[in-house]
Amino acid sequence: MNSIKFLPPRDSVLSRREEIISQLKAMLPRGSLVHEPRELVPFETDAFVSYKQMPLAVVLPENTAQVAAIMSFCYRNSIPVVPRGAGTSLCGGAIPQPDAIVVGLSKMNVVLDVDYENRAAVVQAGVTNLRISEHVGADGFFYAPDPSSQLACTIGGNIGMNSGGAHCLKYGVTTNNLLGVKMVLIDGTIIELGGKHLDAAGYDLLGLVCGSEGQLGIITEATVRLIATPEGCRPVLFGFETSEEAGACVSEIIASGIIPVAIEFMDKQAIEICEAFAGAGYPLDVGALLIVEIEGSDPEMDDMLSRIVDIAGRNSVKTVRASQTATEAALIWKGRKSAFGATGRIADYICMDGTVPLSKLPYVLSKIAEIIDRFGLRVANVFHAGDGNMHPLILFNANDPEDAAKAEEAGNEILKLCVDVGGCLTGEHGVGIEKRDLMRHQYSDDELNQQMAVRSAFDAEWLLNPSKVFPLEGRAI
Amino acid sequence: MNSIKFLPPRDSVLSRREEIISQLKAMLPRGSLVHEPRELVPFETDAFVSYKQMPLAVVLPENTAQVAAIMSFCYRNSIPVVPRGAGTSLCGGAIPQPDAIVVGLSKMNVVLDVDYENRAAVVQAGVTNLRISEHVGADGFFYAPDPSSQLACTIGGNIGMNSGGAHCLKYGVTTNNLLGVKMVLIDGTIIELGGKHLDAAGYDLLGLVCGSEGQLGIITEATVRLIATPEGCRPVLFGFETSEEAGACVSEIIASGIIPVAIEFMDKQAIEICEAFAGAGYPLDVGALLIVEIEGSDPEMDDMLSRIVDIAGRNSVKTVRASQTATEAALIWKGRKSAFGATGRIADYICMDGTVPLSKLPYVLSKIAEIIDRFGLRVANVFHAGDGNMHPLILFNANDPEDAAKAEEAGNEILKLCVDVGGCLTGEHGVGIEKRDLMRHQYSDDELNQQMAVRSAFDAEWLLNPSKVFPLEGRAI
Repeated sequence: MNSIKFLPPRDSVLSRREEIISQLKAMLPRGSLVHEPRELVPFETDAFVSYKQMPLAVVLPENTAQVAAIMSFCYRNSIPVVPRGAGTSLCGGAIPQPDAIVVGLSKMNVVLDVDYENRAAVVQAGVTNLRISEHVGADGFFYAPDPSSQLACTIGGNIGMNSGGAHCLKYGVTTNNLLGVKMVLIDGTIIELGGKHLDAAGYDLLGLVCGSEGQLGIITEATVRLIATPEGCRPVLFGFETSEEAGACVSEIIASGIIPVAIEFMDKQAIEICEAFAGAGYPLDVGALLIVEIEGSDPEMDDMLSRIVDIAGRNSVKTVRASQTATEAALIWKGRKSAFGATGRIADYICMDGTVPLSKLPYVLSKIAEIIDRFGLRVANVFHAGDGNMHPLILFNANDPEDAAKAEEAGNEILKLCVDVGGCLTGEHGVGIEKRDLMRHQYSDDELNQQMAVRSAFDAEWLLNPSKVFPLEGRAI
Repeated sequence: MNSIKFLPPRDSVLSRREEIISQLKAMLPRGSLVHEPRELVPFETDAFVSYKQMPLAVVLPENTAQVAAIMSFCYRNSIPVVPRGAGTSLCGGAIPQPDAIVVGLSKMNVVLDVDYENRAAVVQAGVTNLRISEHVGADGFFYAPDPSSQLACTIGGNIGMNSGGAHCLKYGVTTNNLLGVKMVLIDGTIIELGGKHLDAAGYDLLGLVCGSEGQLGIITEATVRLIATPEGCRPVLFGFETSEEAGACVSEIIASGIIPVAIEFMDKQAIEICEAFAGAGYPLDVGALLIVEIEGSDPEMDDMLSRIVDIAGRNSVKTVRASQTATEAALIWKGRKSAFGATGRIADYICMDGTVPLSKLPYVLSKIAEIIDRFGLRVANVFHAGDGNMHPLILFNANDPEDAAKAEEAGNEILKLCVDVGGCLTGEHGVGIEKRDLMRHQYSDDELNQQMAVRSAFDAEWLLNPSKVFPLEGRAI
């Protein structure tokens, strides 16, 4: 795969490599600069492993002041900057380029403040997603968005991509759980947006920054919403003969007004892969599986479950199985959350992230099957069905360039299909470089120009993460 | 009161008044242009009645194409534009200026589409807030944000101000319930943001536009989230001796992780005013009252109520009274929602809208009392306590210029106090002209400059609602 182009590197930067490195070295504490080619290898890609680029250097600042100093230096010298959390981006959001300084936030991993009266925690941007919930779990609280990579991915990266997760059906994605940030603009200016209070005076720049893929500044601290852990929760498995029945069941649950915590979908391929990996107890005699998580007190869960079982019955459900113990519940989620890793054991794959209006789910599932058949590929569908956020995993052989090209082409067709039915290129992974060249399929020129004008209002020279999000042709710069 | 200045009108516009009016007349259907001085009077202010300005003309377009034609005309002729919904803004967001065309959306009042499978309704911007819930109520759904003015205020105005309401503690404010908009940019370009799907590719311009006070474009259609009506709901009254006890009780409820649908606060003055107006059955022997609304099935409500009663007990609650019938419940809310109207019957007032971190509530309440005493004024406190969104109503005599000036000064001190404790100038009313000159107290120059740069990226000439939001000095234009 190499259909996606990067910007040509700036000679003005490459030719000054040694000088830039020695200046960065002088600015930073020992151990905060990586520049030997061998040591740079871990930074040449992220979880979108099909593409690789070496950066000029990697810096690992320890505080906001160091980030500001680095940004100011890069700004004055017109050096591109690529922010990086844990490098778990599935769309290449953290892939560097040869003329760029990667600013890695991994050393900024301190939980600064926990404040239950204001339902908030303040954390440095390099704190991992799961760490927040672990930190407040004993007090009966958690942080809601839960990407599958939550053990590794950082809150800064989550904000950059407006990450979601299985439990976002009820609790919303990152933007719904973010109260404030401290961020460094491209010229080194430090600003604060939001805080421990409702709303903000003037424009909602916090909402704008969330999901801006590291192009408007580097976030160094975040204030996030804490939520009380529910009394109980229970994942329930619903097996169906066909994907269409499962899809119709999801639509009917939502249309009835019921909002479970999560509705996850797995097709036959995904069930088999995950069951083989996790031994989660998934039924293997069904064509599609829904994991519906409900929460609350026992009577509340019983009540909601009986209503969902009724709806599933009307959609020809074959198997209904509620987890009986905490261990069973954990296994059910382990199976689902390891879907990507488990798939990676049997084949190379690319993971799509289109979202569709829920009413289009059955139609889109059957069209995906058609597209995949036409290309002679295989697909495993495992996704956040309640949100209409689809994750077809297209399986291919990375050592066969023709197969890889086919996978990329099939993926593009699927994403265009999502847009064509009134959906969107991405639900929670971001655009990155992966979907950059499809943005004109999603947006009119006027719409894209307005986004680019906003970008220029933060970063007139387009130094921040410059190869991403917007097609290279027709840029404002 | 006249301490707030408007921009000087543009002579280039005023001198061409007749020509502009005849050109607008030629563009619009009969009955869509208001220009006779007598007919313009209803448009000279909004609910921030202390300030009045006559517009050059008012246009009442019937569809998006007409809005686009008007905007394009104003853009080409450098004529300021002031969007207007129902004119219920409490911060002067819809107050015109002599060189401006007011674009009123009142004729665009059609519910275009209701789609339960996607939990969404599509409405024109002039549809009133309450109308949406009325439209879907029989099917068991509602639209959550509920400003006190919901009978009159429009969804377009709600989006402009990111409006809230009593029930936003659980369901969030407008931005949390908005899925998409169609909007017209200053040059007449029509763009669409968001839709019936999760998230959006690229930047979250929808989040940015929500709360941008009509300065980034005119919204003509909105796609909003529908929510299933809960099985039951029950407002419960908790009376306390002092405001400090009531405030501490709110903090403790939230810190325990319980999120009722609403926690409303009324001090003694507000209780008396509202009870006299609505006969809501509020206890008159208490110093402060909380209206806590809980919802769900009867067992769920019983469970939540018993936990809240425990907390209230620890904070010396004097009276606990749950509504026994739907009529009683409606009366309790009628009393609360008529607070502004009821206050208006006994005195002139200005309504503040600061938000504070919840933990600061008791401190801020006692400081407000000090400030009001120092100015020799009276105050009624009635507000969304669960969100820390305060609404001190400062009572004064508008016919006494000295009294009016004192009220304005006291209000400014209160808003600065909110900012100083880590809060914000506005929770749900917006900045408008009212709080414009306090924005430098909230933001650093860097922060404000970044907001203004974003504004310029949409409207380089600052034609849209130009006197609002940003202090007149130090503007980017």
